[in-house]
Amino acid sequence: MSTNSDAGARRPVLALVGATGAVGTVMIDIMNARPSVPWGEVRLIASPRSAGRKITVRGAELTVVALSAEAFDGVDIAMFDVPDEVSAEWAPVAAARGAVAVDNSGAFRMDPEVPLVVPEVNADQISARPKGIIANPNCTTLSMMAALGALHREFELRELVVASYQAASGGGQAAIDRLYGELEALAGKEVGVRAGDVAEALEAAGLPLSESPFPAPLAFNVVPWAGSLKDEGWTSEELKVRNESRKILGIPDLKVSATCVRVPVVTTHSLAVHATFAREVTVEQAHKIFAGQPTIVLVDDPTAKKFPTPVDVVGEDPTYVGRVRQALDFPNTLDFFVCGDNLRKGAALNTYEIAEELVDRL
Amino acid sequence: MSTNSDAGARRPVLALVGATGAVGTVMIDIMNARPSVPWGEVRLIASPRSAGRKITVRGAELTVVALSAEAFDGVDIAMFDVPDEVSAEWAPVAAARGAVAVDNSGAFRMDPEVPLVVPEVNADQISARPKGIIANPNCTTLSMMAALGALHREFELRELVVASYQAASGGGQAAIDRLYGELEALAGKEVGVRAGDVAEALEAAGLPLSESPFPAPLAFNVVPWAGSLKDEGWTSEELKVRNESRKILGIPDLKVSATCVRVPVVTTHSLAVHATFAREVTVEQAHKIFAGQPTIVLVDDPTAKKFPTPVDVVGEDPTYVGRVRQALDFPNTLDFFVCGDNLRKGAALNTYEIAEELVDRL
Repeated sequence: MSTNSDAGARRPVLALVGATGAVGTVMIDIMNARPSVPWGEVRLIASPRSAGRKITVRGAELTVVALSAEAFDGVDIAMFDVPDEVSAEWAPVAAARGAVAVDNSGAFRMDPEVPLVVPEVNADQISARPKGIIANPNCTTLSMMAALGALHREFELRELVVASYQAASGGGQAAIDRLYGELEALAGKEVGVRAGDVAEALEAAGLPLSESPFPAPLAFNVVPWAGSLKDEGWTSEELKVRNESRKILGIPDLKVSATCVRVPVVTTHSLAVHATFAREVTVEQAHKIFAGQPTIVLVDDPTAKKFPTPVDVVGEDPTYVGRVRQALDFPNTLDFFVCGDNLRKGAALNTYEIAEELVDRL
Repeated sequence: MSTNSDAGARRPVLALVGATGAVGTVMIDIMNARPSVPWGEVRLIASPRSAGRKITVRGAELTVVALSAEAFDGVDIAMFDVPDEVSAEWAPVAAARGAVAVDNSGAFRMDPEVPLVVPEVNADQISARPKGIIANPNCTTLSMMAALGALHREFELRELVVASYQAASGGGQAAIDRLYGELEALAGKEVGVRAGDVAEALEAAGLPLSESPFPAPLAFNVVPWAGSLKDEGWTSEELKVRNESRKILGIPDLKVSATCVRVPVVTTHSLAVHATFAREVTVEQAHKIFAGQPTIVLVDDPTAKKFPTPVDVVGEDPTYVGRVRQALDFPNTLDFFVCGDNLRKGAALNTYEIAEELVDRL
């Protein structure tokens, strides 16, 4: 995190593209809560349909302007919280107008000319940005990056086996609404008594699966599918965990297997992580490292049954880590459990942290 | 599965200890649905408080008798679905009276003189039972045993990294009631907006955490804890997965790491399995093996987004397997997802299958 310490310098202009969306709204909350960078101007940009809306940022009422090339004139840093195809089209436009685009979509993450940044792990990569674009990682990957980055610096990460417990809000407001709707339709019913009865009850309640953002019921269920199908049966989400982890940590040959599963949780992704290092690592060493990280909260007291769970982490900035165990049969290996708010560190917060880091490197 | 084909033989007498409990009730459903073994007599045994209750089994109204040494007189096979301490005391009593005890508790599973049996994996171990006791595995381990046993026979299993998605009913009726109670208390509320609000709302609704069978809220949450604390931060449930897998598969040096997590599902445990073998195994080979197993249903068509989920499997006898993928970075390794009804194959069904196998080996 940087502050613009030279009082004589021109204060940078920050744009937020997608200001009225779910992540954009969290972004504005974060800007209000983190006043360290005094922006010269904050410009809110959204689709033409949202233009004209008034939103208060840091005490000032701002009017949302429509997305256009001219909207980026004079902008130093443009944060994008929009769908992939909107970023793909407009981030280069912002860059061409002289802004650094910080993009939270999947459009540029694996582009070799675009750094993929988690500030506490690889802030040094912010300066080299040949396309004028910096990418923010996928929320599932992000949930474990602070913890893995800190361990990797000491013990050299080699292998990663991950299973996720992903919240509905990763699929946007429609996905949250679907989960609440399903639970309401099933309230008071004895479900799970016989195969298929949840799907039948949802159908009867006017909530057919064909209209769900999920490929199976989410209430009283878990759904081992996130994203779209890629090669060999792997989902896009599972490959993002692999490829983005490799790029962020700078380990091109990191071995990764991930299984991504949606669970009936509103917000906060959790991951069961099995991580193998080049050198031996004890629980005590890991605890010490985690406790020393400003963006990690260690909650790990098994005697008192204290560990992180998603509902403890909603709205929180840090990643929570617990259940740290030395693997009994795998050398140099730790098993642990992490929880991160997928809308904050997983999306808006990390994007804003990149913007803060950029202030001194424009 | 065996049938007592010799019509002239004395038909064996079967006792069910814990006949009025949650698993006992499922057991009676299973006996009604599987008429293959014609028992000479079925004797229902329970605590003195349940004695005298009438329960219909295979069309006959039976009267529950109180647990006592004499209750085992004339019994050939006694199935125990009772807490560990009840089994620890009474299974040896049944054995001393000449019955073979088939025990679904954790009391004897790791006893070297007690076989731990999943019939489709190691039915051959039923005959050697020096204590007259055979143990039924933990439900979480059981959910993946049919699949792993079948793969192990062909490819020789070496390593296992597992993350579980365990249903509330693994904790009994009180745990199911707690999940429903929490969801009812939170119905219509916007939860997961801020850390701790779920716990606060439950407290306000008269459902304090101190009265829950779970160490954290389960509604809208996942809880990375099952069982009790053992050495080095591992839970009893995680060590059961390791130690019971080794014993059932007959691989004393099998490498295992498990993270056991409770999810807001009523019934059916799921597992994300990362399994490494001595020899290369393709998805096609694994599909062929799974499709050939009578106790496995393969649901694996990623193009159509078809995979198993817990609500599809409730009340079903087989284990469901899907999301089979060859690991991209780990040689000889498959990642897959399994779902098994923890009350059926995970408990009552496997116990009854062992009893059926015993008929010809008394």
